Amino acid sequence: MSLDTILSRIDDDIDASTERLFELLRIPSISTDPAYKADCQTAADWLVSDLAALGVEAEARPTPGHPMVIGHAGEGGPHVLFYGHYDVQPVDPLELWHREPFDPEVQDGPAGKVIRARGACDDKGQLMTFLEACRAWKAVTGEWPCRITFVFEGEEESGSPSLVPFLEAHKDELSQPDIALICDTGLFDRQTPAITTMLRGLLGEEIIVTGPDKDLHSGLYGGAAANPIRVLSKILAALHDGQGRVTVPGFYDGVTELPANIQAQWDALGFDAEGFLGGVDLSVPAGETGRSVLEMIWSRPTCEFNGIVGGYAGDGFKTVLPSQARAKVSFRLVGEQDPFAIRESFRGMVKSMVPADCTVEFLNHGNSPATVMSTADPAFEKARLALSDEWPNDAAFIGSGGSIPIVGYFKEILGMDSMLIGFGLDDDLVHSPNEKYDFRSFHKGIRSWARVLDALTR
Amino acid sequence: MSLDTILSRIDDDIDASTERLFELLRIPSISTDPAYKADCQTAADWLVSDLAALGVEAEARPTPGHPMVIGHAGEGGPHVLFYGHYDVQPVDPLELWHREPFDPEVQDGPAGKVIRARGACDDKGQLMTFLEACRAWKAVTGEWPCRITFVFEGEEESGSPSLVPFLEAHKDELSQPDIALICDTGLFDRQTPAITTMLRGLLGEEIIVTGPDKDLHSGLYGGAAANPIRVLSKILAALHDGQGRVTVPGFYDGVTELPANIQAQWDALGFDAEGFLGGVDLSVPAGETGRSVLEMIWSRPTCEFNGIVGGYAGDGFKTVLPSQARAKVSFRLVGEQDPFAIRESFRGMVKSMVPADCTVEFLNHGNSPATVMSTADPAFEKARLALSDEWPNDAAFIGSGGSIPIVGYFKEILGMDSMLIGFGLDDDLVHSPNEKYDFRSFHKGIRSWARVLDALTR
Repeated sequence: MSLDTILSRIDDDIDASTERLFELLRIPSISTDPAYKADCQTAADWLVSDLAALGVEAEARPTPGHPMVIGHAGEGGPHVLFYGHYDVQPVDPLELWHREPFDPEVQDGPAGKVIRARGACDDKGQLMTFLEACRAWKAVTGEWPCRITFVFEGEEESGSPSLVPFLEAHKDELSQPDIALICDTGLFDRQTPAITTMLRGLLGEEIIVTGPDKDLHSGLYGGAAANPIRVLSKILAALHDGQGRVTVPGFYDGVTELPANIQAQWDALGFDAEGFLGGVDLSVPAGETGRSVLEMIWSRPTCEFNGIVGGYAGDGFKTVLPSQARAKVSFRLVGEQDPFAIRESFRGMVKSMVPADCTVEFLNHGNSPATVMSTADPAFEKARLALSDEWPNDAAFIGSGGSIPIVGYFKEILGMDSMLIGFGLDDDLVHSPNEKYDFRSFHKGIRSWARVLDALTR
Repeated sequence: MSLDTILSRIDDDIDASTERLFELLRIPSISTDPAYKADCQTAADWLVSDLAALGVEAEARPTPGHPMVIGHAGEGGPHVLFYGHYDVQPVDPLELWHREPFDPEVQDGPAGKVIRARGACDDKGQLMTFLEACRAWKAVTGEWPCRITFVFEGEEESGSPSLVPFLEAHKDELSQPDIALICDTGLFDRQTPAITTMLRGLLGEEIIVTGPDKDLHSGLYGGAAANPIRVLSKILAALHDGQGRVTVPGFYDGVTELPANIQAQWDALGFDAEGFLGGVDLSVPAGETGRSVLEMIWSRPTCEFNGIVGGYAGDGFKTVLPSQARAKVSFRLVGEQDPFAIRESFRGMVKSMVPADCTVEFLNHGNSPATVMSTADPAFEKARLALSDEWPNDAAFIGSGGSIPIVGYFKEILGMDSMLIGFGLDDDLVHSPNEKYDFRSFHKGIRSWARVLDALTR
């Protein structure tokens, strides 16, 4: 067999592939709304039957929520776990859709054909790129490229409540693969594929400063009584220095510089920092002096203020001197930064800034360390080269400023690294009305997986 | 006639004085609730008829709201305007009252007898101290001590909407007196009477900082995008220096040191700064280093933060990077500080701290300069000595951290200084359930006014 034959088969079969995706898109599997519970089951069953058609031993396993579709196929070679999710976001507000969300259609768009439907990209279209690649492979070779474990979740859009217990209960079965392939991310841009290898961690804290034991009249007490908003402002203002660095003692412990090869790939991306900030009406990078915008959002840790409240904040004016003020503060973590050590250091720093007659409480809003895939594993470079063969530009190992919980669960529970490869674009309107998936993403996505599977099995 | 005779008459008549006060207290003249409109009229009519019983030419003059009671009496000597208000605060929550709010009673309390009812102190009890002093004077001498113009307002507890237009429309009639006597303030403490001669002014501003044009995901943009809460915190934190001084350029222009005689009076008050702050669970004076707590609340200007809001401030956590954050900031002004110059300087300072890609807007929440009575007018020292004769401790010229709008209106519209003398106490539960007025405050208050009128006419 040759890869070219498989790629040709993919091209020849693309209409049938699209029709199969449409079948799945027509099922309104909205996981968060109990009214669609049966539809989630229908989508799971559809996947089981599509896997069965490929000869996979698959089943929809019940959970307290929606079923988890598990299938095992192939033998020999590397063992990969493929993850996707068959549930979709709600469609409200429905009146903003130009077409019924569960009646998919190929439409002409300004940048080529698009598949329009809820879930077209997130995640049914992406998920099917992998299944269609397997189908072509099987059709041409009569065999599976390697051992593959399929995991299709039905609760990704509603917080994955059943996922962790399920992974823990099926640890023996699911921790066998060498690596997880996850198709729920995007291209870097229309020309440039990407493998996300760095995900920032997150530490969430809330500071509650209490001064006087009740709200006071600012005329009667103003000047003499501690004002918690003033105390809180001083604390927040002290958390970054003049160079935009975070001042929490020890904060940068475990933060390392980007490896030279990754740095070179990022430089080659030609990231449009001006356009990125300009898209939200900004122009001045707000992070550390001397760092690029890409570093600021992918590889550098941050301290952000997500919310603040205190005193009277309604219309008009009230001369109140408030008893309390509070702020939600989050830290994005990278490399080996230790969330627990940072929490302790942060709280110590804050406490040291609170006057003797004020008190401070903290609420813990969770923490997760950063995830950095070991790109030294040859699978990563193999996949990167395979993607580079399919797309106009070379693929890059990129970072992601946010966190993707499934990656952490696979790492913690199954002891497995993930390779995040996806073909979404920023304009796919994921979670919004009129979601779409570029037809080119779907077609070249299928071809990409065939190339990646070929590379991984060499 | 002798003052002693008048004081004896007051003592002899105190039961009847109390009963007259009770008549007024039984009228539920809640100005803010339209359901009590007729009661406000009844209270005004009661005052007209009580003034008429004293031989005063008085009438309840209609306004768009509740009537203004105006009366003129006496001739020769100084001309004083006496101001009080006959309306009261609402009584909710009614279930917290131990007695029907409009059924007054003399009760025994830990510090002596008290008159319990809504309005017992604020302001019916205080207002009647003056009327009863006039009544005793008239009974003993058959004459008025001097020319007196009575002004009783019925909308003080609902923002005085009709007051300014009324004063302006009756400027010729009402601007004749030499000085206004206002009975709506308190003793310094149970032993020490006070004349409030310094009222701080107020400048209210709102800062609205806008960064990105929409709320952003803090994972995707955090680090690179300007965070308006961070910008706002830096601004607020910069408004006070390490010594608690306000850093707005030119802020202290027009702030003068306390005259030596006032300073001596304040020192003699033995103000319990520890108890004052301890009462609201604080212990560290928050104002300028080296200033006493009394200075901080009476004679020094301040910058307070009355409210702040931005981003997600509800339960739990949202990793939002907000588009906007806002804070309400107020300045208490003293001496000759110019609110307009300070507003301009403040806005300039704030603007200079906003990054190039963020914007700032300001809302003007009003401004009034400080009021400093010219205590060089011999009337003030005469009244101070008269009060000192009645109470255990000498009276003091004190400050007030808040503002009392009527004083500003009398000054601006009628060109008249006010002398603020009252007999309330901090524990009078003014505006709260179970309002009371010490029977001693009522009795000695009447005697105090007799002494003050005697002193002013000498």
